[in-house]
Amino acid sequence: MSHYQTQNYGKLNEFDKYIFAPEGTPISIPGKLFIGEQLGLTSMEISINKDVPGTAMPFFHRHNDNEETYIFIGGKGEMVIDGERFDVEEGSIVSVQPEADRSWRNTGDKDLYYIVVQASKKSLKASGLNDGEITETPVPWG
Amino acid sequence: MSHYQTQNYGKLNEFDKYIFAPEGTPISIPGKLFIGEQLGLTSMEISINKDVPGTAMPFFHRHNDNEETYIFIGGKGEMVIDGERFDVEEGSIVSVQPEADRSWRNTGDKDLYYIVVQASKKSLKASGLNDGEITETPVPWG
Repeated sequence: MSHYQTQNYGKLNEFDKYIFAPEGTPISIPGKLFIGEQLGLTSMEISINKDVPGTAMPFFHRHNDNEETYIFIGGKGEMVIDGERFDVEEGSIVSVQPEADRSWRNTGDKDLYYIVVQASKKSLKASGLNDGEITETPVPWG
Repeated sequence: MSHYQTQNYGKLNEFDKYIFAPEGTPISIPGKLFIGEQLGLTSMEISINKDVPGTAMPFFHRHNDNEETYIFIGGKGEMVIDGERFDVEEGSIVSVQPEADRSWRNTGDKDLYYIVVQASKKSLKASGLNDGEITETPVPWG
Protein backbone atom coordinates (compact mmCIF):
# COMPACT_ATOMS: atom_id res chain seq x y z
CA MET A 1 0.00 0.00 0.00
CA SER A 2 1.25 3.42 -0.92
CA HIS A 3 2.57 5.62 1.88
CA TYR A 4 1.28 8.82 0.35
CA GLN A 5 -1.69 10.34 -1.43
CA THR A 6 -1.68 13.35 -3.72
CA GLN A 7 -4.44 15.52 -5.14
CA ASN A 8 -4.52 18.70 -7.16
CA TYR A 9 -7.34 21.04 -6.22
CA GLY A 10 -6.53 23.77 -8.76
CA LYS A 11 -5.55 27.41 -8.49
CA LEU A 12 -6.39 29.02 -5.16
CA ASN A 13 -8.23 31.88 -6.88
CA GLU A 14 -10.73 29.34 -8.20
CA PHE A 15 -11.57 27.92 -4.77
CA ASP A 16 -15.02 29.55 -4.88
CA LYS A 17 -16.04 26.35 -6.60
CA TYR A 18 -15.68 24.44 -3.34
CA ILE A 19 -18.64 24.95 -1.03
CA PHE A 20 -18.65 23.66 2.54
CA ALA A 21 -22.28 22.71 3.20
CA PRO A 22 -22.47 19.92 5.78
CA GLU A 23 -25.63 17.81 5.60
CA GLY A 24 -28.31 18.59 8.16
CA THR A 25 -27.07 22.13 8.82
CA PRO A 26 -27.93 25.53 7.31
CA ILE A 27 -24.19 26.17 6.82
CA SER A 28 -23.08 27.00 3.28
CA ILE A 29 -19.63 28.54 2.94
CA PRO A 30 -18.20 29.05 -0.56
CA GLY A 31 -14.41 28.88 -0.81
CA LYS A 32 -13.85 26.41 2.04
CA LEU A 33 -12.41 23.00 1.19
CA PHE A 34 -11.66 20.35 3.82
CA ILE A 35 -9.16 17.82 2.50
CA GLY A 36 -8.59 15.38 5.40
CA GLU A 37 -10.96 12.65 4.33
CA GLN A 38 -9.88 12.60 0.69
CA LEU A 39 -6.20 12.46 1.63
CA GLY A 40 -6.69 9.88 4.39
CA LEU A 41 -5.34 12.10 7.18
CA THR A 42 -5.37 10.59 10.67
CA SER A 43 -3.53 13.30 12.64
CA MET A 44 -5.05 16.54 11.42
CA GLU A 45 -7.81 18.17 9.44
CA ILE A 46 -7.06 21.02 7.06
CA SER A 47 -9.22 23.51 5.25
CA ILE A 48 -8.04 25.71 2.39
CA ASN A 49 -9.99 28.95 2.20
CA LYS A 50 -10.70 31.77 -0.20
CA ASP A 51 -13.01 34.50 1.13
CA VAL A 52 -14.06 37.15 -1.39
CA PRO A 53 -14.23 40.79 -0.22
CA GLY A 54 -17.13 41.35 2.18
CA THR A 55 -17.10 37.79 3.48
CA ALA A 56 -17.62 37.48 7.23
CA MET A 57 -18.17 34.33 9.29
CA PRO A 58 -21.80 34.48 10.44
CA PHE A 59 -21.03 32.82 13.79
CA PHE A 60 -18.40 32.21 16.45
CA HIS A 61 -17.20 28.72 17.20
CA ARG A 62 -14.97 26.82 19.59
CA HIS A 63 -13.62 23.29 19.77
CA ASN A 64 -13.75 20.40 22.20
CA ASP A 65 -10.32 18.84 21.74
CA ASN A 66 -8.57 20.45 18.80
CA GLU A 67 -6.02 23.22 18.70
CA GLU A 68 -6.28 25.27 15.52
CA THR A 69 -3.71 27.20 13.55
CA TYR A 70 -4.78 29.89 11.07
CA ILE A 71 -2.18 30.62 8.41
CA PHE A 72 -2.98 33.73 6.37
CA ILE A 73 -1.35 33.67 2.94
CA GLY A 74 -3.04 36.56 1.12
CA GLY A 75 -5.31 39.55 1.69
CA LYS A 76 -6.36 41.37 4.84
CA GLY A 77 -8.84 40.52 7.56
CA GLU A 78 -9.58 40.63 11.24
CA MET A 79 -10.17 38.00 13.87
CA VAL A 80 -12.08 38.24 17.12
CA ILE A 81 -11.02 35.75 19.79
CA ASP A 82 -12.57 35.82 23.27
CA GLY A 83 -13.71 39.38 22.60
CA GLU A 84 -10.28 40.61 21.48
CA ARG A 85 -10.14 42.03 17.96
CA PHE A 86 -6.97 42.17 15.85
CA ASP A 87 -5.88 42.51 12.24
CA VAL A 88 -4.43 39.73 10.14
CA GLU A 89 -2.85 39.72 6.69
CA GLU A 90 -0.47 37.72 4.52
CA GLY A 91 2.14 36.29 6.89
CA SER A 92 -0.06 36.33 9.99
CA ILE A 93 -0.26 33.02 11.83
CA VAL A 94 -2.60 32.55 14.77
CA SER A 95 -2.64 29.58 17.16
CA VAL A 96 -5.95 29.07 18.93
CA GLN A 97 -6.64 26.86 21.93
CA PRO A 98 -9.78 24.67 21.79
CA GLU A 99 -11.85 26.67 24.28
CA ALA A 100 -11.33 30.03 22.58
CA ASP A 101 -14.43 31.62 21.03
CA ARG A 102 -13.44 32.76 17.54
CA SER A 103 -14.70 34.39 14.38
CA TRP A 104 -13.17 36.39 11.52
CA ARG A 105 -13.86 38.32 8.34
CA ASN A 106 -12.26 39.74 5.22
CA THR A 107 -11.76 43.49 5.77
CA GLY A 108 -9.89 44.17 2.54
CA ASP A 109 -10.81 44.89 -1.06
CA LYS A 110 -9.08 41.71 -2.25
CA ASP A 111 -9.67 38.03 -1.61
CA LEU A 112 -8.54 36.71 1.76
CA TYR A 113 -6.64 33.41 1.58
CA TYR A 114 -5.89 31.25 4.60
CA ILE A 115 -5.30 27.69 5.68
CA VAL A 116 -6.70 26.30 8.92
CA VAL A 117 -5.20 23.19 10.52
CA GLN A 118 -6.74 21.44 13.50
CA ALA A 119 -5.19 18.65 15.57
CA SER A 120 -5.66 17.17 19.01
CA LYS A 121 -4.09 19.41 21.66
CA LYS A 122 -0.99 18.04 23.41
CA SER A 123 -0.81 15.10 20.99
CA LEU A 124 2.55 16.01 19.43
CA LYS A 125 5.30 13.82 20.86
CA ALA A 126 8.24 15.25 18.93
CA SER A 127 8.79 17.15 15.71
CA GLY A 128 11.37 18.23 13.18
CA LEU A 129 14.71 16.52 13.61
CA ASN A 130 13.50 14.94 16.86
CA ASP A 131 10.92 12.93 14.95
CA GLY A 132 12.50 12.83 11.50
CA GLU A 133 15.67 11.24 10.26
CA ILE A 134 17.70 11.83 7.14
CA THR A 135 18.00 8.65 5.10
CA GLU A 136 20.82 7.34 2.92
CA THR A 137 18.77 7.48 -0.28
CA PRO A 138 20.70 9.45 -2.92
CA VAL A 139 18.76 12.36 -4.38
CA PRO A 140 18.03 11.87 -8.10
CA TRP A 141 18.96 15.49 -8.88
CA GLY A 142 22.63 14.88 -7.98
CA MET B 1 -4.09 33.40 30.28
CA SER B 2 -4.83 34.12 26.66
CA HIS B 3 -6.23 31.30 24.53
CA TYR B 4 -4.44 32.40 21.41
CA GLN B 5 -1.16 33.71 20.09
CA THR B 6 -0.61 35.71 16.93
CA GLN B 7 2.50 36.63 14.97
CA ASN B 8 3.13 38.34 11.69
CA TYR B 9 6.06 36.91 9.76
CA GLY B 10 5.83 39.25 6.76
CA LYS B 11 5.19 38.76 3.08
CA LEU B 12 5.82 35.24 1.83
CA ASN B 13 8.13 36.51 -0.94
CA GLU B 14 10.50 37.78 1.76
CA PHE B 15 10.79 34.43 3.53
CA ASP B 16 14.38 34.02 2.29
CA LYS B 17 15.27 35.90 5.44
CA TYR B 18 14.34 32.89 7.55
CA ILE B 19 17.06 30.25 7.55
CA PHE B 20 16.54 26.84 9.13
CA ALA B 21 19.95 25.90 10.52
CA PRO B 22 19.56 23.57 13.51
CA GLU B 23 22.50 23.62 15.92
CA GLY B 24 24.94 20.76 15.67
CA THR B 25 24.01 19.90 12.08
CA PRO B 26 25.36 20.97 8.68
CA ILE B 27 21.79 21.79 7.59
CA SER B 28 21.17 25.34 6.37
CA ILE B 29 17.97 25.90 4.43
CA PRO B 30 16.98 29.47 3.48
CA GLY B 31 13.26 30.12 3.22
CA LYS B 32 12.12 27.56 5.80
CA LEU B 33 10.44 28.87 8.96
CA PHE B 34 9.14 26.57 11.71
CA ILE B 35 6.55 28.36 13.82
CA GLY B 36 5.40 25.79 16.41
CA GLU B 37 7.60 26.85 19.30
CA GLN B 38 6.93 30.57 18.94
CA LEU B 39 3.16 30.02 18.75
CA GLY B 40 3.08 27.46 21.56
CA LEU B 41 1.67 24.65 19.43
CA THR B 42 1.15 21.32 21.20
CA SER B 43 -0.62 19.33 18.48
CA MET B 44 1.35 20.07 15.33
CA GLU B 45 4.48 21.60 13.88
CA ILE B 46 4.29 23.78 10.79
CA SER B 47 6.88 25.13 8.41
CA ILE B 48 6.27 27.89 5.88
CA ASN B 49 8.55 27.58 2.87
CA LYS B 50 9.81 29.63 -0.04
CA ASP B 51 12.24 27.84 -2.36
CA VAL B 52 13.83 29.97 -5.06
CA PRO B 53 14.25 28.48 -8.56
CA GLY B 54 16.90 25.76 -8.60
CA THR B 55 16.35 24.79 -4.97
CA ALA B 56 16.42 21.05 -4.31
CA MET B 57 16.41 19.24 -0.98
CA PRO B 58 19.87 17.70 -0.63
CA PHE B 59 18.56 14.63 1.19
CA PHE B 60 15.60 12.32 1.71
CA HIS B 61 13.96 11.98 5.09
CA ARG B 62 11.30 10.03 6.92
CA HIS B 63 9.59 10.31 10.28
CA ASN B 64 9.16 8.16 13.34
CA ASP B 65 5.65 9.12 14.47
CA ASN B 66 4.42 12.06 12.43
CA GLU B 67 2.19 12.16 9.40
CA GLU B 68 3.02 15.11 7.15
CA THR B 69 0.89 17.15 4.78
CA TYR B 70 2.51 19.24 2.05
CA ILE B 71 0.31 22.09 0.82
CA PHE B 72 1.65 23.76 -2.32
CA ILE B 73 0.42 27.32 -2.71
CA GLY B 74 2.60 28.69 -5.52
CA GLY B 75 5.09 27.62 -8.18
CA LYS B 76 5.95 24.21 -9.62
CA GLY B 77 8.00 21.34 -8.27
CA GLU B 78 8.34 17.62 -8.01
CA MET B 79 8.37 15.19 -5.15
CA VAL B 80 9.90 11.75 -4.93
CA ILE B 81 8.32 9.44 -2.37
CA ASP B 82 9.46 5.82 -1.97
CA GLY B 83 11.02 6.06 -5.43
CA GLU B 84 7.88 7.40 -7.13
CA ARG B 85 8.29 10.77 -8.84
CA PHE B 86 5.42 13.17 -9.48
CA ASP B 87 4.77 16.83 -10.22
CA VAL B 88 3.28 19.32 -7.79
CA GLU B 89 2.11 22.90 -8.24
CA GLU B 90 -0.21 25.48 -6.68
CA GLY B 91 -3.21 23.54 -5.37
CA SER B 92 -1.38 20.23 -4.94
CA ILE B 93 -1.72 18.68 -1.51
CA VAL B 94 0.21 15.56 -0.54
CA SER B 95 -0.32 13.47 2.61
CA VAL B 96 2.69 11.41 3.61
CA GLN B 97 2.82 8.59 6.13
CA PRO B 98 5.70 8.59 8.63
CA GLU B 99 7.68 5.72 7.09
CA ALA B 100 7.70 7.15 3.56
CA ASP B 101 11.09 8.22 2.21
CA ARG B 102 10.64 11.68 0.69
CA SER B 103 12.40 14.54 -1.03
CA TRP B 104 11.44 17.36 -3.41
CA ARG B 105 12.65 20.27 -5.49
CA ASN B 106 11.59 23.38 -7.31
CA THR B 107 11.41 22.55 -11.04
CA GLY B 108 9.98 25.88 -12.18
CA ASP B 109 11.39 29.29 -13.07
CA LYS B 110 9.46 30.94 -10.21
CA ASP B 111 9.60 30.59 -6.44
CA LEU B 112 7.97 27.48 -5.00
CA TYR B 113 5.77 28.14 -1.95
CA TYR B 114 4.47 25.44 0.33
CA ILE B 115 3.40 24.72 3.87
CA VAL B 116 4.28 21.50 5.66
CA VAL B 117 2.30 20.35 8.69
CA GLN B 118 3.30 17.40 10.84
CA ALA B 119 1.25 15.78 13.58
CA SER B 120 1.18 12.44 15.39
CA LYS B 121 -0.43 9.77 13.19
CA LYS B 122 -3.83 8.48 14.34
CA SER B 123 -4.05 11.17 17.05
CA LEU B 124 -7.10 12.97 15.64
CA LYS B 125 -10.20 12.04 17.61
CA ALA B 126 -12.76 14.12 15.72
CA SER B 127 -12.75 17.19 13.52
CA GLY B 128 -14.88 19.88 11.96
CA LEU B 129 -18.43 19.94 13.30
CA ASN B 130 -17.75 16.74 15.26
CA ASP B 131 -15.19 18.55 17.40
CA GLY B 132 -16.38 22.14 17.04
CA GLU B 133 -19.54 23.84 18.18
CA ILE B 134 -21.14 27.08 17.12
CA THR B 135 -21.53 29.43 20.09
CA GLU B 136 -24.21 32.01 20.87
CA THR B 137 -21.81 34.96 20.70
CA PRO B 138 -23.22 37.58 18.33
CA VAL B 139 -20.83 38.56 15.55
CA PRO B 140 -19.74 42.23 15.83
CA TRP B 141 -20.19 42.79 12.08
CA GLY B 142 -23.96 42.33 12.33
